[in-house]
Amino acid sequence: MKKYKIVYEKYKKDILEGFLLNHQALPSIRESCQLLKVSQTTVEHAYNKLVMEGYITNKPQIGYFVDIDEERIQLHKQIDQYQIHHEVLSYTYDFRSQTVSQDSFEMKVWKRYLKDVLDNMANMSTYGDSQGEYVLREALCQYAYNVRGVLCHPDQILIGSNYQSLLFILCGLFEKGTIIGMEYQKNSQAKRVFESYGYQIEMIKMNNDGIDMNDLRKHDIDVLYINSASQGLKRKPISHQLKNDLLSYTQEKNIFIIEDDYNGELTYASKDRYALQGFSHNDNVIYCGSFSRLLLPSLRISYLVFNKHYYQIYQQLKKQYGPTASKLEQLAFAQYIVDGYLQKHLKKLKKEYREKNKYMLKAIQKYIPYPYYLDEAYLCYHIQLDHINESQLMQECQKQHIAINSIHHHILSISFASLQLSEIENAIILLSQIIKKSSR
Amino acid sequence: MKKYKIVYEKYKKDILEGFLLNHQALPSIRESCQLLKVSQTTVEHAYNKLVMEGYITNKPQIGYFVDIDEERIQLHKQIDQYQIHHEVLSYTYDFRSQTVSQDSFEMKVWKRYLKDVLDNMANMSTYGDSQGEYVLREALCQYAYNVRGVLCHPDQILIGSNYQSLLFILCGLFEKGTIIGMEYQKNSQAKRVFESYGYQIEMIKMNNDGIDMNDLRKHDIDVLYINSASQGLKRKPISHQLKNDLLSYTQEKNIFIIEDDYNGELTYASKDRYALQGFSHNDNVIYCGSFSRLLLPSLRISYLVFNKHYYQIYQQLKKQYGPTASKLEQLAFAQYIVDGYLQKHLKKLKKEYREKNKYMLKAIQKYIPYPYYLDEAYLCYHIQLDHINESQLMQECQKQHIAINSIHHHILSISFASLQLSEIENAIILLSQIIKKSSR
Repeated sequence: MKKYKIVYEKYKKDILEGFLLNHQALPSIRESCQLLKVSQTTVEHAYNKLVMEGYITNKPQIGYFVDIDEERIQLHKQIDQYQIHHEVLSYTYDFRSQTVSQDSFEMKVWKRYLKDVLDNMANMSTYGDSQGEYVLREALCQYAYNVRGVLCHPDQILIGSNYQSLLFILCGLFEKGTIIGMEYQKNSQAKRVFESYGYQIEMIKMNNDGIDMNDLRKHDIDVLYINSASQGLKRKPISHQLKNDLLSYTQEKNIFIIEDDYNGELTYASKDRYALQGFSHNDNVIYCGSFSRLLLPSLRISYLVFNKHYYQIYQQLKKQYGPTASKLEQLAFAQYIVDGYLQKHLKKLKKEYREKNKYMLKAIQKYIPYPYYLDEAYLCYHIQLDHINESQLMQECQKQHIAINSIHHHILSISFASLQLSEIENAIILLSQIIKKSSR
Repeated sequence: MKKYKIVYEKYKKDILEGFLLNHQALPSIRESCQLLKVSQTTVEHAYNKLVMEGYITNKPQIGYFVDIDEERIQLHKQIDQYQIHHEVLSYTYDFRSQTVSQDSFEMKVWKRYLKDVLDNMANMSTYGDSQGEYVLREALCQYAYNVRGVLCHPDQILIGSNYQSLLFILCGLFEKGTIIGMEYQKNSQAKRVFESYGYQIEMIKMNNDGIDMNDLRKHDIDVLYINSASQGLKRKPISHQLKNDLLSYTQEKNIFIIEDDYNGELTYASKDRYALQGFSHNDNVIYCGSFSRLLLPSLRISYLVFNKHYYQIYQQLKKQYGPTASKLEQLAFAQYIVDGYLQKHLKKLKKEYREKNKYMLKAIQKYIPYPYYLDEAYLCYHIQLDHINESQLMQECQKQHIAINSIHHHILSISFASLQLSEIENAIILLSQIIKKSSR
């Protein structure tokens, strides 16, 4: 250790351990030299470091004094002793909705694409385009057209690391006093953004099929936020009829639609359908898509398609935004799409989830005697448990190493996304026993 | 091609090429069967697809009609013909400030860390913690303490894909009517966030050293935004005196400070200094750090350290936020830090930039007879060019394959970050000739 460091460590320790108290004077530089048998420069160096780090203060012409209070001493001690640890829980069955099928994704292929990008140092050592890499915008433009019927130009696409950061940018372009209509959703990320901006939120009633048009007509709103693949009390994909009704009503009233098309392309129980955006003759739909469920949840890439109006506003401010999504992942993903892997993988996923859903439905019908419905986009069943001791259910699940989401309004949501086909029945049997045990 | 697809493609083409006009009736299903010699199911399948994609509409009991206007036809055609292309410009010398040294980063090491994470499929197939991966928060807590003197607990850290998305979250927690003070900055990402929220922005005057304390006292603000490594008219790191003045004034007036510590640790021309955060006895500083300049600009990881007040508010809303930074990059980065590579790399970078800065300074003094000053954090020199035809300068640079940022207020900013040591002199000579040519 260098000499000044020894001096520094000595006084630091003295302060942290309470030998030198707050406001107490330190030995003068000359005294320290004699005391510790070191040069003046060494002591000065050490004292300066202590000043810089906020342990002591220098009163010119007077001397050095301890300048740190008890709380900060505790903080210093805590961080110094801080041990890096990380607890990972493992579960027998995982019914939580934030997981995906682990074996469906060809990691090998994805790694190859990442590697190709990493091998090109020039790509990695420059900032990305704040709107998203152009190659990825081109690829997404084609993909969204083919798979979702979205009509747009790559210039209209904004890529972000997640759907919420895109909404933060979009909603910052809205006028003050914007009124936003949406279905009731607890803890929704979209709602958080609207609330952050202080926009007035009107909750629109819903029926089994989706938004209630009659109730919608009663609200005076500027923007309507909808989740087009998971609508209404039964979380169904939006029907053709409702789609037309919404588009003609919003066109007439000059309302913008934010279409959250979360997992819209991942159909395995219902028929394929296109997004609203492509049907809007009035260009009043802003479309959002994401890939966390199609590829890897850990991959943070979402995109938003501006309509012309907001595209123009964004374009003027573009320089004031920074890129959010990883350039590495963006470039790898662009080539992955261009080479056709995304559509291939989507096809594979649909088949896999169609099977899993069949097994799941059968098992629920057989073992769980409660009303249920499928939320296709979220890959889960919502089960209405009315006479259940919820906290007992949660505890019992934990005891048996079963991971579930928390229960809201007596509804238990169980996802089959990450369960193996062969374990679905056993998982449901075990869950049904826990439910029985927790019945009141 | 499947039979229904042939029928579908035929009518789609007829519509897009104008053989079937808007509102015109299609042949009935029976007529199409006879016309095209296919089964009724095949025609129905094709017609349904055309309805779904918004080309035709079905009037029950009457028939199918074209339902698409000219603008949408053009859009369909455009996207169908869309060619994926990507133009990459190459430059002889790149003076733009968004680049970094290409050879300083050990890509091999970084790839190894990425690979380790990718090999653990369980990590990749689950969503991340919306606050950021805990292991990375732990590692950053230690790093920020060691390198920046930041005092915090991992729970106080919020990780995001960039500094702006963190600010979007933070500013959404502020009260309505918040007044924010900041130095004048054109196109700043922070300003964009404040403006998005409609917060009143007070521009605080600056002098050569940083914020003008006398002017600050004249403004009634709730939050002060400062860039602690690049302050004032001469973009200097904040002085010890100003640091103390700011902390005691903001403590007295109950003002929160947002400390943007962009590149604060990357000192190569000035002395090391600690961030404000660690000196705040009043816990009124929110700290932001980022790594785009330390590692790879393409790596999107930034972090924010809440003070206790905003940490508590955030904690209550945490469920309503989604993760923004790539989990892959977060986990790789955590281990990279824990293994000491970040601090090692920082040391290497400082040495490299110290050398480059020496060469750059010498060359500017020798060849460019205009006033200049160094912006250490942004790795660039600002040169005051008063009698220059700016558009001619820009054009001439382009002609000679020299990349520069645009000129603001007669100030040309040239970065040495991505120049090789050996090319600095020649680059400056070439630039000086262009400047001479563009003089008025």
